[in-house]
Amino acid sequence: MLEELKKEVYEANMLLPKYNLVTFTWGNVSAIDRESGLIVIKPSGVDYEIMKPEDMVVVDLDGNVVEGKYKPSSDTPTHVKLYNDFTEIGGVVHTHSRWATVFAQSGKSIKPYGTTQADYFYNEIPCTRDMTPEEIKSNYEYNTGGVIVDAFKDLNPTYVPAVLVKNHGPFTWGKDAMEAVHNAVVLEEVAMMALNTELLTNHTAKVMPTDLIEKHFKRKHGPNAYYGQN
Amino acid sequence: MLEELKKEVYEANMLLPKYNLVTFTWGNVSAIDRESGLIVIKPSGVDYEIMKPEDMVVVDLDGNVVEGKYKPSSDTPTHVKLYNDFTEIGGVVHTHSRWATVFAQSGKSIKPYGTTQADYFYNEIPCTRDMTPEEIKSNYEYNTGGVIVDAFKDLNPTYVPAVLVKNHGPFTWGKDAMEAVHNAVVLEEVAMMALNTELLTNHTAKVMPTDLIEKHFKRKHGPNAYYGQN
Amino acid sequence: MLEELKKEVYEANMLLPKYNLVTFTWGNVSAIDRESGLIVIKPSGVDYEIMKPEDMVVVDLDGNVVEGKYKPSSDTPTHVKLYNDFTEIGGVVHTHSRWATVFAQSGKSIKPYGTTQADYFYNEIPCTRDMTPEEIKSNYEYNTGGVIVDAFKDLNPTYVPAVLVKNHGPFTWGKDAMEAVHNAVVLEEVAMMALNTELLTNHTAKVMPTDLIEKHFKRKHGPNAYYGQN
Amino acid sequence: MLEELKKEVYEANMLLPKYNLVTFTWGNVSAIDRESGLIVIKPSGVDYEIMKPEDMVVVDLDGNVVEGKYKPSSDTPTHVKLYNDFTEIGGVVHTHSRWATVFAQSGKSIKPYGTTQADYFYNEIPCTRDMTPEEIKSNYEYNTGGVIVDAFKDLNPTYVPAVLVKNHGPFTWGKDAMEAVHNAVVLEEVAMMALNTELLTNHTAKVMPTDLIEKHFKRKHGPNAYYGQN
Repeated sequence: MLEELKKEVYEANMLLPKYNLVTFTWGNVSAIDRESGLIVIKPSGVDYEIMKPEDMVVVDLDGNVVEGKYKPSSDTPTHVKLYNDFTEIGGVVHTHSRWATVFAQSGKSIKPYGTTQADYFYNEIPCTRDMTPEEIKSNYEYNTGGVIVDAFKDLNPTYVPAVLVKNHGPFTWGKDAMEAVHNAVVLEEVAMMALNTELLTNHTAKVMPTDLIEKHFKRKHGPNAYYGQN
Repeated sequence: MLEELKKEVYEANMLLPKYNLVTFTWGNVSAIDRESGLIVIKPSGVDYEIMKPEDMVVVDLDGNVVEGKYKPSSDTPTHVKLYNDFTEIGGVVHTHSRWATVFAQSGKSIKPYGTTQADYFYNEIPCTRDMTPEEIKSNYEYNTGGVIVDAFKDLNPTYVPAVLVKNHGPFTWGKDAMEAVHNAVVLEEVAMMALNTELLTNHTAKVMPTDLIEKHFKRKHGPNAYYGQN
Repeated sequence: MLEELKKEVYEANMLLPKYNLVTFTWGNVSAIDRESGLIVIKPSGVDYEIMKPEDMVVVDLDGNVVEGKYKPSSDTPTHVKLYNDFTEIGGVVHTHSRWATVFAQSGKSIKPYGTTQADYFYNEIPCTRDMTPEEIKSNYEYNTGGVIVDAFKDLNPTYVPAVLVKNHGPFTWGKDAMEAVHNAVVLEEVAMMALNTELLTNHTAKVMPTDLIEKHFKRKHGPNAYYGQN
Repeated sequence: MLEELKKEVYEANMLLPKYNLVTFTWGNVSAIDRESGLIVIKPSGVDYEIMKPEDMVVVDLDGNVVEGKYKPSSDTPTHVKLYNDFTEIGGVVHTHSRWATVFAQSGKSIKPYGTTQADYFYNEIPCTRDMTPEEIKSNYEYNTGGVIVDAFKDLNPTYVPAVLVKNHGPFTWGKDAMEAVHNAVVLEEVAMMALNTELLTNHTAKVMPTDLIEKHFKRKHGPNAYYGQN
């Protein structure tokens, strides 16, 4: 079932240690087959070194396991929530990558200071609100998806394909698993540079001009994009 | 004698350079066989590149060498003290890993800012008190264990499997040598992120909600754990 | 056409990932054949892993493509502007290397704090002014070259072979592509150390004595240089 | 001539890139044969990748080249000055290693904050005074050795085997070339941790107790050392 997608999700998961985004098993990638409404996701707590494509778990949009010898990632309900609410996305990544997690732990969004960020993110990268005690105590992982969706009330998730979950870490997404991983790598670069920009300016950094964000984002995205080959 | 345990301790020691936790010979791992009360520990100042399983030294719970062609690690009395007082632990690691050592040098505990820490540590990771001149001058290494034990007067060492020895560096432990090394890796990640959280917030970082610590720690530990496979 | 130069530009581009100056395709190197007035540059958005020497694109000093199956780097007009105005340079590099980009995002020049910088840069490394909305909206990449040239109104580009484009990132240059890459590596080292010098001194760092800059720069450059072999 | 020592100096030089202490050719190691009073040193500006043991240059204690097809390192007069004044040392290393150079650029000594430093350095690691314009303009490299010697007026160089040359970078030494390289690695670790200790404490870090420095230094050095095998 969905063998091609399992292979892709497996390979996307294997990129997380390659890009130095995870320690041990602290990360997971999923992708959705929109036609069938089925999601393929990494099993929970299995070492990257022994994981195989056929170990990927298939769940439906209600979070029920459809196929798989392992339990799915404990973060599965968060992925499921995102696929339900962000209907244009095809892949989701969660990591505890260092610099992005520092922003999450600080409860701070990543402000746009440079074109590296604007090439991929049309706005600042938001940090979610505090979860309530009730949200933490029951259906925690699903509610984690909820606070992410809340943070995008006035934001287009395809224009800002990343979020920082407060006191936790980043989630990124994209049209498929590979693009979601790509965005996780970009986010980590952008977070490292934003943090050091704030330190170098002694916490007085100014955001970049809106025109420059517009220029760079549109250079790579949308009908008038002219970066790369056709 | 204890050949299996020697192999395990050897392999755990070899993970320290692999995980970039030590420079030269600045680190040591031990494990205890609770049945016989015998501890296997790395020899003192032997290069990782030439060390072999049979070079591990066996000492008893009074710190006397029982077997070994080399002198045991100079930190052996600290390990011995920990095995005597923390009766549930099976492995101990000492390193001078960079970010954790920075906290030790600063005399600061690592406050809980995010779920990466709460997944492994149920409270802040404490820093020991200053040692007295007398504690430094005689039985220094044993007394180092003593100030660690003091720091856990009101803490459960299996719930907080790490400590920062002031002006020195971290010790971690676990149910065996491998888990102690695992916790040493986690500690270093957590320290790097906590330090940068304090800098990014200009030293105004707030600790995470207690409910969130509870949720994450219990997700991985205790009877209601649901992370990973069974 | 210019096969030797294409090979050199290709190899110079491949050094960017080797020296950890780029993530994905975020960088480009070009070189000029001053006799023919033709520039060889990396194609836009092609992965380093599959790029070949023959994929390099040839453009003239008006920015028109003369040869190539791919579109040239989207930053080509910036390179073209630099070759037109800085008539002694033979190679140009653009990256988003982390530490240099942090200075660009902060809108700060890199002040001379040490001999590592003075060995290569006779003055501080300037940061460009803000671009006007008009400069951003049309001919953006060419105008990026324009603000660089503005920043060198009173500076000799062969004495300061690097610049920080505000809210963007660094450009470096040299007598050929390889020297431009060399300077990009040096710039990144210098930026890392300058930033941490400012942090360590709590933003009170003093620039080095002018005599010392003079000594180190002239030790390596000009008629009285005595560093290296003849 | 001195073929064994050339091999040793060559190998010590090759450790600098291995330990990530140098970029390009920014570093040099020498050693002295005290019997003949001859010094073996790296040639100036030769790539590590093509350098061979027989490329090492032999100079005497007046700095005159005795043997060698290449010019010696441009820093040779500094090494010569150190061998003349610090009569117990056998090897010298100069690098621009990042964290140590940040202290040099800041004009700050490295205060003793932890046992990692005290295991190797009995005091703080001093930063030299500013050089006078005259000292810079003529015999610069020899005078660089002079300000180092000045900094050790009241310090024993075998007890503190490193110095930071202001606005420049570190020199370290030891009983031979290998020990000097070892100390260069330790210095870089210690500098990284000291800098971050100052940042984490918001520039209020306190030095460690003198008793603890005494304990750790003497544990590894002198007649009562008990670290390592005999």
